[in-house]
Amino acid sequence: MDEKQREPFVAAMTAIMGKASVLHRYEDLLAYECDGYTIHKGIPGAVLFPANTGEVAAAVAYMHKHKIPFIPRGAGTGLSGGATALNGEVVISLVRMNKLLSVDYLNRKAVVQPGFINLKLSNSISTKGYYYAPDPSSQASCTIGGNVGENAGGAHCLKYGVTTNHVLGLELVLPNGEIVRLGGVPDAPGYDLLGVLTGSEGTMGIVTEITVRILKKPQGVKTVLALYDDVNDASLTVSDIIAAGIVPAALEMMDNTAIEGVESGNYPVGYPRDLGAVLIVEVDGIEAGLQHQIDQVLEVCRKYGVREVRQAADAQERARWWANRKTAFGAMGTISPDYLVQDGVIPRSTLPQVLAKVSEISAKYGLRIANVFHAGDGNLHPLILFDSRVPGEKENAVKAGSEVLKACADVGGSITGEHGVGIEKMEDMRFILSDEEIRVQIGLRQVFNGENLCNPDKIFPKPARCVEVKQYVASSRES
Amino acid sequence: MDEKQREPFVAAMTAIMGKASVLHRYEDLLAYECDGYTIHKGIPGAVLFPANTGEVAAAVAYMHKHKIPFIPRGAGTGLSGGATALNGEVVISLVRMNKLLSVDYLNRKAVVQPGFINLKLSNSISTKGYYYAPDPSSQASCTIGGNVGENAGGAHCLKYGVTTNHVLGLELVLPNGEIVRLGGVPDAPGYDLLGVLTGSEGTMGIVTEITVRILKKPQGVKTVLALYDDVNDASLTVSDIIAAGIVPAALEMMDNTAIEGVESGNYPVGYPRDLGAVLIVEVDGIEAGLQHQIDQVLEVCRKYGVREVRQAADAQERARWWANRKTAFGAMGTISPDYLVQDGVIPRSTLPQVLAKVSEISAKYGLRIANVFHAGDGNLHPLILFDSRVPGEKENAVKAGSEVLKACADVGGSITGEHGVGIEKMEDMRFILSDEEIRVQIGLRQVFNGENLCNPDKIFPKPARCVEVKQYVASSRES
Repeated sequence: MDEKQREPFVAAMTAIMGKASVLHRYEDLLAYECDGYTIHKGIPGAVLFPANTGEVAAAVAYMHKHKIPFIPRGAGTGLSGGATALNGEVVISLVRMNKLLSVDYLNRKAVVQPGFINLKLSNSISTKGYYYAPDPSSQASCTIGGNVGENAGGAHCLKYGVTTNHVLGLELVLPNGEIVRLGGVPDAPGYDLLGVLTGSEGTMGIVTEITVRILKKPQGVKTVLALYDDVNDASLTVSDIIAAGIVPAALEMMDNTAIEGVESGNYPVGYPRDLGAVLIVEVDGIEAGLQHQIDQVLEVCRKYGVREVRQAADAQERARWWANRKTAFGAMGTISPDYLVQDGVIPRSTLPQVLAKVSEISAKYGLRIANVFHAGDGNLHPLILFDSRVPGEKENAVKAGSEVLKACADVGGSITGEHGVGIEKMEDMRFILSDEEIRVQIGLRQVFNGENLCNPDKIFPKPARCVEVKQYVASSRES
Repeated sequence: MDEKQREPFVAAMTAIMGKASVLHRYEDLLAYECDGYTIHKGIPGAVLFPANTGEVAAAVAYMHKHKIPFIPRGAGTGLSGGATALNGEVVISLVRMNKLLSVDYLNRKAVVQPGFINLKLSNSISTKGYYYAPDPSSQASCTIGGNVGENAGGAHCLKYGVTTNHVLGLELVLPNGEIVRLGGVPDAPGYDLLGVLTGSEGTMGIVTEITVRILKKPQGVKTVLALYDDVNDASLTVSDIIAAGIVPAALEMMDNTAIEGVESGNYPVGYPRDLGAVLIVEVDGIEAGLQHQIDQVLEVCRKYGVREVRQAADAQERARWWANRKTAFGAMGTISPDYLVQDGVIPRSTLPQVLAKVSEISAKYGLRIANVFHAGDGNLHPLILFDSRVPGEKENAVKAGSEVLKACADVGGSITGEHGVGIEKMEDMRFILSDEEIRVQIGLRQVFNGENLCNPDKIFPKPARCVEVKQYVASSRES
């Protein structure tokens, strides 16, 4: 936004949503210089706090008319820079739109505003025996709107799927200010726009209302902790559990460096510091079948020489294990001044091979890498530890992260499982997508966001050949 | 295709794929005048049988250059007219591309050509203990390519999801002849193009290769048959089973008229003719938990005064029940010269209300309606029985079908669960989508199919306001 646009912009926004909802002084904006991805930062042109869909639509319509770019933001817990304003964009924070609007237990759905906190949904419906399945580690603070933007996952996505599998309908303010509703009916006909919007990282509009699926809590849950001397044995256990036909609710792994971090954090379990890996295996469902599955799991663990394996004695012990695991990222702060978390996905069978490659990359850059995995679905979170006060370490961490993602892509995997591409992985997209495929993706964005005002220049690198969608004739081809 | 285009077209196609793969004489084309939806028919300009992706791409590139519209076709079992050439389009049949290309048991995926028959996949991997979950009733003849086009469902989609939940990657010939690959890696970054393509009814290109998820066969399966005097009691049973937290693998229902049909067909079970409804409830999973679930199901059935309830004694009895259910549509031919099958979706809790409305519509038009349901997911298949030799009956059947869909939409449901929109339900789309939403959908199609050559003028009605995508400013709005 240029300087002569600023004064009328602030006046217009103040007229729409009130003075307290429009931050525009430098000192107020500083708190919004980045989200959970801290490598790149930028001060927004302003931060808005609309209270309802009408205010969002009015603000967006104004910005569309005046060609002012804008970025939606939830709790700011994103890990790829999706909510960061690199070029002075206006940030639209949805935290004031934080209500649970309705719950329909009979048809198993709930309607929330985008700023509603993930964990609050499960807490709100728990006494009736229901919960909301996607459970990112940040679930105590992240918003469901942000989850939709990033197609957030979580530890229990192995069995229950990621956010896109739980979104039934959306209300959306298009980048031109129009309000549309997508889905909301079972099996909406036409192209799957809900699927396109979910995980679109705020590039297709501002989600202002979300209808999600709620699930009946399983009758029983059993959780096993398996401690290994060797991380490879843990990896082989993961493959064998899945091969046995068991679909655990969660199948999580941490390696030695990650264990060092969590044991130094606020929720230590008391893991021996010399462990090669910890595995958490959780099964849930009808009580009667669970012990049989656990027995199968224990058998596989023993086959691979597990040092120690035990079942959670009660809900409290289980909760302690999960608190430890879910705070793993933050706990790295106790053993390293800075860390960069990556988010690669690989075919499960390549786990040992990719872990070896990660070790190589760690050695090459002289940076420790702690590995935290949603192992069951092949989703790795290498935490690259560095010290930004040491010249070159931050840059090396970024390079190491990119090499890890390349290693994932090379075995037929992906560069993001649940954190999104954002700013961070734009160039890494080339590991996966061809120029032609990038062209199609940008074409799709243009349907919604033709002027690229809504979270501009995120996700996609510039195609080498052409930025704009064009139709061209492929006149002949080998058969 | 106009007449002066025909001769060079036939010559070009013959050069690409050989004479035997190009049908262009009227008597040969007649067999392709419709798919499984027989209300509207049309003779294609030609029918092509390419043998590989290169031939598809070369043919499409030629047609793109010469502005000749074309339509992909699988086995022709579709139920909404998606593969029907109303305006002399060229049909591209994928039946020669019918190979299973590879199976990766460790990472649980298989790669097939689009003409590969659905059931053959499960049969090919069965001895290793695996299967492919989506199981439309036509699975013995329909192709996986066609399943992708229509986002096909089936009896076991209640627990396992529809085709889109099982497609991991696609190779696609775009409407301009370019070949692109979508997905194929776990969690591909960027917008969910796989989700958009799946269920796009052939309007975005020609799918030439499909990577699907394969599942380990469940350890155990138990099936219960429940016979009711009153269809409403069966409906209430359905709601209560789901409310109890059980997710059956399948939860199917047939009403009295449907029972009359299946008992007159080739696979009678011996159902009493005076039954109000039959319910099939199937649970699968770890053996140890199944009987407990079945006991809960039996308890719910008894609560609603079931006349008789029994468990399948063995795999043969279970297979007989399913053969009867899966041939229900065809069996209607034994009690009516013609029938029109509809495909509405409703919230489960509205089943009794919508069934009452269907009865009213039946009475209004003097046409019998047999109801076959995937009851667990609220997917109704009213079979409207008529005699096309009686003047007006066909037209009344179409009107009655549309009224049934309106009734589904009115309770917050949808006009198609698994059969697609095709030709049949284009106008009924207005029950669900606003003009603005239709505009966004057509905009999305244009990204892939800018000249509308690929299965033109299907799915979407003409928006009342505008056909083309345009950006416009919504300059002000109430807050």
